[in-house]
Amino acid sequence: MFFDYSQGARRMGGTVVRDMLTMAQVPGLVNFGGGLPAPELFPMDAVRAASEAVLERQGWRALQYSATEGHAPLREALAERTPGLTRDHVQIVNGGQQALDLIAKVLVDPGDLVLVEAPTYMGALSSFAPYGPAYRGLPMDEDGLDVGALESVLGELAQGGRRAKFLYVVPNFQNPTGRTLSLERRERLLDLSEEHGLVIVEDDPYAELRFSGAALPSVYALALARAGGDPEAVRVVHFSSFSKVLAPGLREGWVQGAREFTDRLAQAKQGADMHSPTFNQMLVHALLPELPAQVERLRVAYARRAGSMLAALEQHLPPGVAFTRPAGGMFLWLTLPGHLSASALLPSAVQRKVGYLPGEHFFHDASGANTLRLCFTNAPEERIGEGVRALAGVLAEGGERHAAS
Amino acid sequence: MFFDYSQGARRMGGTVVRDMLTMAQVPGLVNFGGGLPAPELFPMDAVRAASEAVLERQGWRALQYSATEGHAPLREALAERTPGLTRDHVQIVNGGQQALDLIAKVLVDPGDLVLVEAPTYMGALSSFAPYGPAYRGLPMDEDGLDVGALESVLGELAQGGRRAKFLYVVPNFQNPTGRTLSLERRERLLDLSEEHGLVIVEDDPYAELRFSGAALPSVYALALARAGGDPEAVRVVHFSSFSKVLAPGLREGWVQGAREFTDRLAQAKQGADMHSPTFNQMLVHALLPELPAQVERLRVAYARRAGSMLAALEQHLPPGVAFTRPAGGMFLWLTLPGHLSASALLPSAVQRKVGYLPGEHFFHDASGANTLRLCFTNAPEERIGEGVRALAGVLAEGGERHAAS
Repeated sequence: MFFDYSQGARRMGGTVVRDMLTMAQVPGLVNFGGGLPAPELFPMDAVRAASEAVLERQGWRALQYSATEGHAPLREALAERTPGLTRDHVQIVNGGQQALDLIAKVLVDPGDLVLVEAPTYMGALSSFAPYGPAYRGLPMDEDGLDVGALESVLGELAQGGRRAKFLYVVPNFQNPTGRTLSLERRERLLDLSEEHGLVIVEDDPYAELRFSGAALPSVYALALARAGGDPEAVRVVHFSSFSKVLAPGLREGWVQGAREFTDRLAQAKQGADMHSPTFNQMLVHALLPELPAQVERLRVAYARRAGSMLAALEQHLPPGVAFTRPAGGMFLWLTLPGHLSASALLPSAVQRKVGYLPGEHFFHDASGANTLRLCFTNAPEERIGEGVRALAGVLAEGGERHAAS
Repeated sequence: MFFDYSQGARRMGGTVVRDMLTMAQVPGLVNFGGGLPAPELFPMDAVRAASEAVLERQGWRALQYSATEGHAPLREALAERTPGLTRDHVQIVNGGQQALDLIAKVLVDPGDLVLVEAPTYMGALSSFAPYGPAYRGLPMDEDGLDVGALESVLGELAQGGRRAKFLYVVPNFQNPTGRTLSLERRERLLDLSEEHGLVIVEDDPYAELRFSGAALPSVYALALARAGGDPEAVRVVHFSSFSKVLAPGLREGWVQGAREFTDRLAQAKQGADMHSPTFNQMLVHALLPELPAQVERLRVAYARRAGSMLAALEQHLPPGVAFTRPAGGMFLWLTLPGHLSASALLPSAVQRKVGYLPGEHFFHDASGANTLRLCFTNAPEERIGEGVRALAGVLAEGGERHAAS
């Protein structure tokens, strides 16, 4: 080894990119493995028109350096979604992934305790890794994070004189499980946050992709209401992105929170990459009026795909396999009998032309060998049934092999 | 303070953004302060055409998630510039600023020693800050970094059993001084690198903007030749960007180096923001054929602006003020008599409608109070003389005030 790498670099790695690339290269494979939005639904015409309009109207401004905090009209439009916020509470970032990196950068020192759902978004684990947190995983059920378990953990920590740096939560249609945190639990979470001074990092890219049931207020919105509308008194940092409702290839997202926090994020962003691409921010801003119709198109399509997948799972899965029933988002989650390993079964699945992501990648402690994530948004609707049948075959065969051994 | 920030966050800050914003807001001010390329020279028509072509030909691919390492055709085109490289030696990043962040992330632990030129690029100091390096500054003269001083420092470190993590160097038309490292010194630098196992991080965004004299091989190219063309045996990490030769608002740059190093960078990039915007990478790739003509336009224009500034400095500066004579790039550097402070004089300068950047921001130890940076690329040529006259007036007045006190 020529280079003497940092401790941070030594903590990185363990990506699943190889699995995902392998699956992407198998011709004819029905790929439930990636976390990709449906590309055939990207608003190509609107993007083409917005791109022309931005270059025409903004001219050189679209190509010049710009403010680290982000394009002011975009920040303002995002702030206007929440009464009480101004653009000073909004920091533009390169998608939710950069939000995770910068938030960890300004909060986490090696050994700091971070609370995560078990399972949690694997990209968060890879963003946090270089900063060296210790994790405590919190169990989930159909209503999301188990707040009773959180209460116990916080009590235990307080007794030992310790504190968690923050709780990381994906409240709506969580990646990977598709579960949603109930309203009652959101309120209870805020009680606990107040009681223990717990900072909550809320990652909310899927909220608008709800296709059944009523929308819930974000944890951030509830906290803001409790704080009498004063953003400086809110201990929740909220972020989202345009990746799931518009297009991920533009890499645009934002963080909102107290001014003291967004100021720190701006310092971190300055050193990280100066600012998000000016052109892309203007493009997203120009596309904001298109979003409601685009989101509606996605909701309709994703509802059908989720419906097809759920129907096929009902019909074909062998007994002993449980699955979640998301009301929105992009993912659902399978729990296999405890003796099966989703990783071990993946090569047979790929051979049968179906791909998924083993669940262990989503656990801070690499547990969950008998779980897997399915993405229902990126497979053509007419092939979802075929993919699920192939998957069911692999799982049944795995169970039989186990019974015979 | 609501949030309990990390040690990294506490090390950030000390940006000059406020000074720069103040200058940008003064109407009629001739601003030599920013580090901006000339926006009136951006190839707007080419960008417009490329944008249409990319959306037309690539369709949804331009808007979908893509590989962390970068758009393969762009990586290949960049690799082809250097015989022996493949795309595996190239990592796409969001401009040179992200290269600095990711390189520090994979190499620097708190307390690690980093060698920098004194002065050095201030953006590097802000990227490195959260990782907590200790610095050792190396003096420069008209031929760039003083390699004799480097030799002494490396000898001293070796005697004490210490090593530097890397040397950060901007060899061509350095930001802030405009100085270029001579060929003889580049070779000597590589001798020292071999002798001491010193890693060199070469930041080279200005090389193509040479308007006088013959181009020099990069430190990377010289090292590759010494290594018999084997990129895996090169201890230099080289990076550059499209910000200065095309447009900074697209935030596209790249790092090239040994495969073991680019692999680490890809891991860091994955956690940092997943990948650079797909659309922007395709746009830059589509614009590559335009670059030679664009660079030629920039060379001609910047040569004239640098010439105007040098002529005006010759004519107007009071005695005792020294300045560099860059053969390319965007900047030149003034050294005032030792009793003058560029920071203290800035308000008078702004009042006289001329802006500059105080040199102290470019020193790891905030020394250099009597230095300042001028950017010659972002002021209209016909106003450069006026700006320099105003600056000369401020400096002369400052000198008189000192003499009278």
